[in-house]
Amino acid sequence: MNLQSAASLPGPGRLEAFSDGVLAIVITLLVLELKPPHLVAPDDAREAMTALVALGPKFLSYLLSFFFVAVFWVNHHRFFRLIQQVDTRLLWLNTLLLLALSFVPFPTSMIGEYPGNAAVLALFALVLMIAGLAFNLMWRHARSRRLYHAGVDPAVVARAAARGLVGPALYALAAVLAFVWPPAAWALFGIIPLFYALQRPGGVAQSRISQKEKS
Amino acid sequence: MNLQSAASLPGPGRLEAFSDGVLAIVITLLVLELKPPHLVAPDDAREAMTALVALGPKFLSYLLSFFFVAVFWVNHHRFFRLIQQVDTRLLWLNTLLLLALSFVPFPTSMIGEYPGNAAVLALFALVLMIAGLAFNLMWRHARSRRLYHAGVDPAVVARAAARGLVGPALYALAAVLAFVWPPAAWALFGIIPLFYALQRPGGVAQSRISQKEKS
Amino acid sequence: MNLQSAASLPGPGRLEAFSDGVLAIVITLLVLELKPPHLVAPDDAREAMTALVALGPKFLSYLLSFFFVAVFWVNHHRFFRLIQQVDTRLLWLNTLLLLALSFVPFPTSMIGEYPGNAAVLALFALVLMIAGLAFNLMWRHARSRRLYHAGVDPAVVARAAARGLVGPALYALAAVLAFVWPPAAWALFGIIPLFYALQRPGGVAQSRISQKEKS
Amino acid sequence: MNLQSAASLPGPGRLEAFSDGVLAIVITLLVLELKPPHLVAPDDAREAMTALVALGPKFLSYLLSFFFVAVFWVNHHRFFRLIQQVDTRLLWLNTLLLLALSFVPFPTSMIGEYPGNAAVLALFALVLMIAGLAFNLMWRHARSRRLYHAGVDPAVVARAAARGLVGPALYALAAVLAFVWPPAAWALFGIIPLFYALQRPGGVAQSRISQKEKS
Repeated sequence: MNLQSAASLPGPGRLEAFSDGVLAIVITLLVLELKPPHLVAPDDAREAMTALVALGPKFLSYLLSFFFVAVFWVNHHRFFRLIQQVDTRLLWLNTLLLLALSFVPFPTSMIGEYPGNAAVLALFALVLMIAGLAFNLMWRHARSRRLYHAGVDPAVVARAAARGLVGPALYALAAVLAFVWPPAAWALFGIIPLFYALQRPGGVAQSRISQKEKS
Repeated sequence: MNLQSAASLPGPGRLEAFSDGVLAIVITLLVLELKPPHLVAPDDAREAMTALVALGPKFLSYLLSFFFVAVFWVNHHRFFRLIQQVDTRLLWLNTLLLLALSFVPFPTSMIGEYPGNAAVLALFALVLMIAGLAFNLMWRHARSRRLYHAGVDPAVVARAAARGLVGPALYALAAVLAFVWPPAAWALFGIIPLFYALQRPGGVAQSRISQKEKS
Repeated sequence: MNLQSAASLPGPGRLEAFSDGVLAIVITLLVLELKPPHLVAPDDAREAMTALVALGPKFLSYLLSFFFVAVFWVNHHRFFRLIQQVDTRLLWLNTLLLLALSFVPFPTSMIGEYPGNAAVLALFALVLMIAGLAFNLMWRHARSRRLYHAGVDPAVVARAAARGLVGPALYALAAVLAFVWPPAAWALFGIIPLFYALQRPGGVAQSRISQKEKS
Repeated sequence: MNLQSAASLPGPGRLEAFSDGVLAIVITLLVLELKPPHLVAPDDAREAMTALVALGPKFLSYLLSFFFVAVFWVNHHRFFRLIQQVDTRLLWLNTLLLLALSFVPFPTSMIGEYPGNAAVLALFALVLMIAGLAFNLMWRHARSRRLYHAGVDPAVVARAAARGLVGPALYALAAVLAFVWPPAAWALFGIIPLFYALQRPGGVAQSRISQKEKS
């Protein structure tokens, strides 16, 4: 793809803004899966507390997905700060990522409703794994086509591309563990976003990209 | 319409940003049509899988509409990168396009629920056809009123305007086919966005518009 | 309010962007009020058509609210293109406007469900009247505190402020007519946005504000 | 955290835009908690009015949450206008704030449904208290790490950081009062946003930050 045809594609700024919009909406829609429980005695505080505690798995699945999407939002920006040019393939890989992330409310709702169902937990893991894989493909593609800014250290991009398979592998593991012992899958769902969150400040730190805000 | 009165209209940047917002919301709201199925045995993985497979048409309609809106988002940008000035008619044609696209979740939900109903499939085709027609009218209007940037090759705009009726015609065909054999309509629903996606890098490539991001 | 304290307020650009976001979401959420009808025979095209026709009032209320919000979006931009500075009162008047507009899905849903109920139609009229009044107060306040750009003709602002009460008055009339003959209220609901849409290119045309996009 | 590693974080502009998006969505989603009441006689205006009056607590909870989020939006901008640089901790404190605010529709819906239930009112107070605390932690962190612009008076930031605990303390009080006399909690829910709204023009007024719009 040459510069000419790239002229017909939305640039990185537009793609980043659109992705931001989708992620902001996904993260906010998650709350719609939480429905007020029915109380027999409307003014009974004790019944309300019992009903809220019974919603525990729903609150937990809400929290997990919220942090997963939030971490993805941060990493998505980290990626696009390095990118100078968008080609057709990067555009569609990003669309695949948005497809997976905007689908998240459905499996979130499922695991909140059926927290002990192995197939349901595996579905949740699968969706997050696809998001992680799509994001990893974006890094790999940016590396091989050198879509990043001139000042970016190629080793930084290569390292991020290589490391990005750890997340999807852990989600695959969670999908398997769900059939052995569901709580282990839940534990991994909580740990994996931490992994994504913590890897962040490391890799790109040494690159010499400018400080300026892109938007 | 002269430049004076155009001063009271939102410029192309605003119109593009607002349309982006609407499309980001539509594409993310689609998931709300997917409701968790009811499981008799909450922990039965086999029942969950059967229930998820039964949701097949809903997942498929979700996917079709997601890609349709995503493709429209890309093409909408491709259009606005060429546009220098918005007049009243372009504003209202764009509003008609947003009306059709933001209505998409309803027929999407309908075909997911009644995948074999000819009238329902025709409704879905009709809504997407109206979106395609509105977009085509935008191209035609931009061509006849020369609303594009000075550097844009008029032949590129003319070609896009002419070619833009193929999509609506295919949706009309899908509406007819729905009454003959529903699966044929489904097949067309999958094929048409591909047509829109693939036509993209072609036409505008030769125009000499600048590379700079507009936003 | 002096410039010092204004430093702690979001500027016109931010206020405009936030309002844009709210309006884009409102206009897109309207579709969620449309639920797929239940079909006894899932594949019966005739039954589907009958069921869709029975949704007529819902489609109509959707259309009315969509165009009302779209027209407000255009007029809101027309207003903010003239504004140089936001003070506390303008901020809260704009919040009141957003409150009325983001409430619109509820009365929209009500008139779609009970199209012949006078009280329901009056509620719809009341909400749109409040939106119109809040917007008119914004114009009046901008006029009296001279919050507009230096190049803007004060007569243009004065004219817009004066004319802006026609819309609210018509909605008040619609609320009254609803109790006499509901279809008359429906007719007015369709006509009033046209009034708002058509008044647009007129008033500001003569002002000498620059063509440049503000965002 | 040095400038190098900060290069991998979204800058203040991006964080502000994303937070804006989330707040715009939250404030607009609140209306989805309002469902049209069922009328036995669809055209009976009197029954409709009675049904709407019965929705009183829902309308009130809608209003309270709308103004709470609107006030937070204003204060959030006031904060970010002073901020020059975002570090990891500020990023995650802001995420915690967004988590609390995007959760608001759930307790809003709860107090609308069970307006006299002490535990439900305490939940609402708790969520708003967490939002207030997260915001206060943002101010404190910005103060101690000097993340603000060079021209900002440190005393202004110190004052805002100190004063920011009043809101959370009042919400804690509301949670306690809910168990004594629920209407007192409701009264406080209405008063506290006023407190946040009124404190605004004061503190930052004296600082000499530039007037220019940051976005």
